[in-house]
Amino acid sequence: MKIEIIPVGDEILIGQIIDTNSAWMAAELTRQGFEIVAITTVGDDAENIRRQIDIAFSRADVVLMTGGVGPTKDDITKKTLCDYFDTDLVFDETVLENINRLFAHKNYKLNELTRSQAFVPKDCTIIQNKAGTAPILWFEQKDKLLVSMPGVPFEMKTAMADEIIPRLKKRFQSVDYLKYSFLVSGITESALATQLEDFEAQLPGNFSLAYLPSYGLIRLRLSAWGNENLPEMEFQKGKLKKALTEILVAESDAPLETLLGEALRSNNLTVSTAESCTGGNIAHRITMVSGASEYYKGSIVSYDNAVKTSLLGVDKSAIDTHGAVSREVVEQMAQNVSKKLKTDCSIAVSGIAGPDGGTPEKPVGTVWICTKMQNEIVTQKYQFGNSRAENINRSTNMALLQIIRMVNKEQRTKNKEQRVKTE
Amino acid sequence: MKIEIIPVGDEILIGQIIDTNSAWMAAELTRQGFEIVAITTVGDDAENIRRQIDIAFSRADVVLMTGGVGPTKDDITKKTLCDYFDTDLVFDETVLENINRLFAHKNYKLNELTRSQAFVPKDCTIIQNKAGTAPILWFEQKDKLLVSMPGVPFEMKTAMADEIIPRLKKRFQSVDYLKYSFLVSGITESALATQLEDFEAQLPGNFSLAYLPSYGLIRLRLSAWGNENLPEMEFQKGKLKKALTEILVAESDAPLETLLGEALRSNNLTVSTAESCTGGNIAHRITMVSGASEYYKGSIVSYDNAVKTSLLGVDKSAIDTHGAVSREVVEQMAQNVSKKLKTDCSIAVSGIAGPDGGTPEKPVGTVWICTKMQNEIVTQKYQFGNSRAENINRSTNMALLQIIRMVNKEQRTKNKEQRVKTE
Repeated sequence: MKIEIIPVGDEILIGQIIDTNSAWMAAELTRQGFEIVAITTVGDDAENIRRQIDIAFSRADVVLMTGGVGPTKDDITKKTLCDYFDTDLVFDETVLENINRLFAHKNYKLNELTRSQAFVPKDCTIIQNKAGTAPILWFEQKDKLLVSMPGVPFEMKTAMADEIIPRLKKRFQSVDYLKYSFLVSGITESALATQLEDFEAQLPGNFSLAYLPSYGLIRLRLSAWGNENLPEMEFQKGKLKKALTEILVAESDAPLETLLGEALRSNNLTVSTAESCTGGNIAHRITMVSGASEYYKGSIVSYDNAVKTSLLGVDKSAIDTHGAVSREVVEQMAQNVSKKLKTDCSIAVSGIAGPDGGTPEKPVGTVWICTKMQNEIVTQKYQFGNSRAENINRSTNMALLQIIRMVNKEQRTKNKEQRVKTE
Repeated sequence: MKIEIIPVGDEILIGQIIDTNSAWMAAELTRQGFEIVAITTVGDDAENIRRQIDIAFSRADVVLMTGGVGPTKDDITKKTLCDYFDTDLVFDETVLENINRLFAHKNYKLNELTRSQAFVPKDCTIIQNKAGTAPILWFEQKDKLLVSMPGVPFEMKTAMADEIIPRLKKRFQSVDYLKYSFLVSGITESALATQLEDFEAQLPGNFSLAYLPSYGLIRLRLSAWGNENLPEMEFQKGKLKKALTEILVAESDAPLETLLGEALRSNNLTVSTAESCTGGNIAHRITMVSGASEYYKGSIVSYDNAVKTSLLGVDKSAIDTHGAVSREVVEQMAQNVSKKLKTDCSIAVSGIAGPDGGTPEKPVGTVWICTKMQNEIVTQKYQFGNSRAENINRSTNMALLQIIRMVNKEQRTKNKEQRVKTE
């Protein structure tokens, strides 16, 4: 069974918003064993929407549409679907009840426009939207299945998780998608491919290996469809792991902040951060993980040098002598933040994110990262590029990676000691 | 002239990455007067790529493809385009020179795989990739134009900005896209649409008004194609502004952090932040703006209550009596951070991001926000939902909005005083 996702909305085509919905849907559907063949964004235009539905059904069994179902005039999906499936709008009391329930909860007043959300196509199954006013429309005609849902991320996610995916699983046989991910760092994509040449040459044709570089990391994905490939997958992932040797960071495609959380938890360690050029992004990434408060204490974002001396206690003389972007300053930042916030580990970053502020000795993209674990510190200098967003993201990744490696090394050493003890 | 963007890559179809490239391309192309009719992601599959190119040319004049041009085996775009345009690969010395130059700069060693990037289709114009090893391929056959470029964001952006957009502008007549944006807050989408019913009823048919809700804000976009509509646009945007009254935040679609920077700069004010549940995201958003160091001093991310008392100097008794998520604590956070970091303004947030940590009195999504400007403070309580990411993003937006309003009110008052003085 193949799926095409069709996000509807001019705001995506003019680049006003990034389509994060489709990535979430694709990840969930793949995890549940469904294959996505295309993701096609079209504008709020009836003719283009109808044509795209035809195209989609030429390569997919199921079409999932998001967006264009709000109460305002620019939202034309519902009307267009009525035309496409040759049906009319009728008033649905249960949808109105759902809207009334939601509005009562939020203390909103119902107006005519919102009430119009209760008009729904006659020839389709109506699924209540638990998180918003636009109902989910499930059209099934002959062997064609099309589901229309809201584009508001929270409403879409609720509908997909609670209603649409369970119904798709009931209706179709899903084929398991086998996927195994490795995270590597410290190598270019082409050098990695050369290193894996022999591995790829012997890989069975129904297996694929993909390289996904992102801000200093490469994610490798080994995949195949169908549970009958499980034994071969086990064999191949063992081979791949051996071929990766010391560049392997983790056997996972989890974000670095999740890996850090796992590493800290299993070693019963806490961490704090002192950020300059990353401006709070490391703290932000760490705290996107729920339960981070168990191991994360806080951050001092010392964007201004005066804050580095006053709040972080960095020696003014060190800044004057070496500059704020230097080994001396970043090491003091790491030492002091862990002392002040009483944590076992710490991360400190100081650099020049750009586009301004570079000098011939310290061009834009110069970044010092120091990570500390108990009495040990590791300090490294990086030279990134000219893009501010890129420098912030790369610095964040390299800093998270550096502390993960320290903590995991500790773990390996501990395991070794325990083995020695028990032997 | 119409454009279809085709990102190629299994990693998008399985939801492993979010396609941020297309949003950037769409925004740039729209700004330059080009219309995007569809954005279609297909996998690394030759047959699907070829079929999609046919579909794209049935509705667009130009196809822009990204991705699938790396040196590894999973990248098949170049080979597929050779088949589609019926041409062969030939070795190109200038591409090799470009690769050598790049690798020398980065101190990388050239290997066979990277060298293979210099094999290019014979019947196409080769554009050097200044930022990476895969060349940009410009195919032009009869009235069909297809450009293939790398999917690595920095490489794609460099190629688009320096080469592809300038060449498209030379080759095609662009029609100016007229767009005017308003940012509003404090109203539901349907209530706003009701408020704008009369405005929409009189809006000429070639104008469109779109509603884009996002984390507590609604962006309104009034648009039309063609410079002949400029006078009408002037007239309509004046009318729309009047209809929006006090819910209007800004006449702009700039991010809140950019608006905050402008407001602070024009009032010569500095700001600091004290964050709990937002975990550094406000600091991160503020520092994504280049030049933020002019007005932003830093943040104390007091994720742990002990950090609130030790580093921020919040009274332990206030936390014990009212809890960390309370008016008393958030007001002390705002007062103390501006004193410690010596800033005119400050933002403090304390809340329960979830999914755990809620109580019947303070359920998940309870957030207190305090903003301070000189001797004035504003404190507000919000009740958001159950999603952690949503709560972090909404809190961040509402906090930025609250301080922007304070600073801009100051500006209005100052302007008034100046008028009084000069009159």
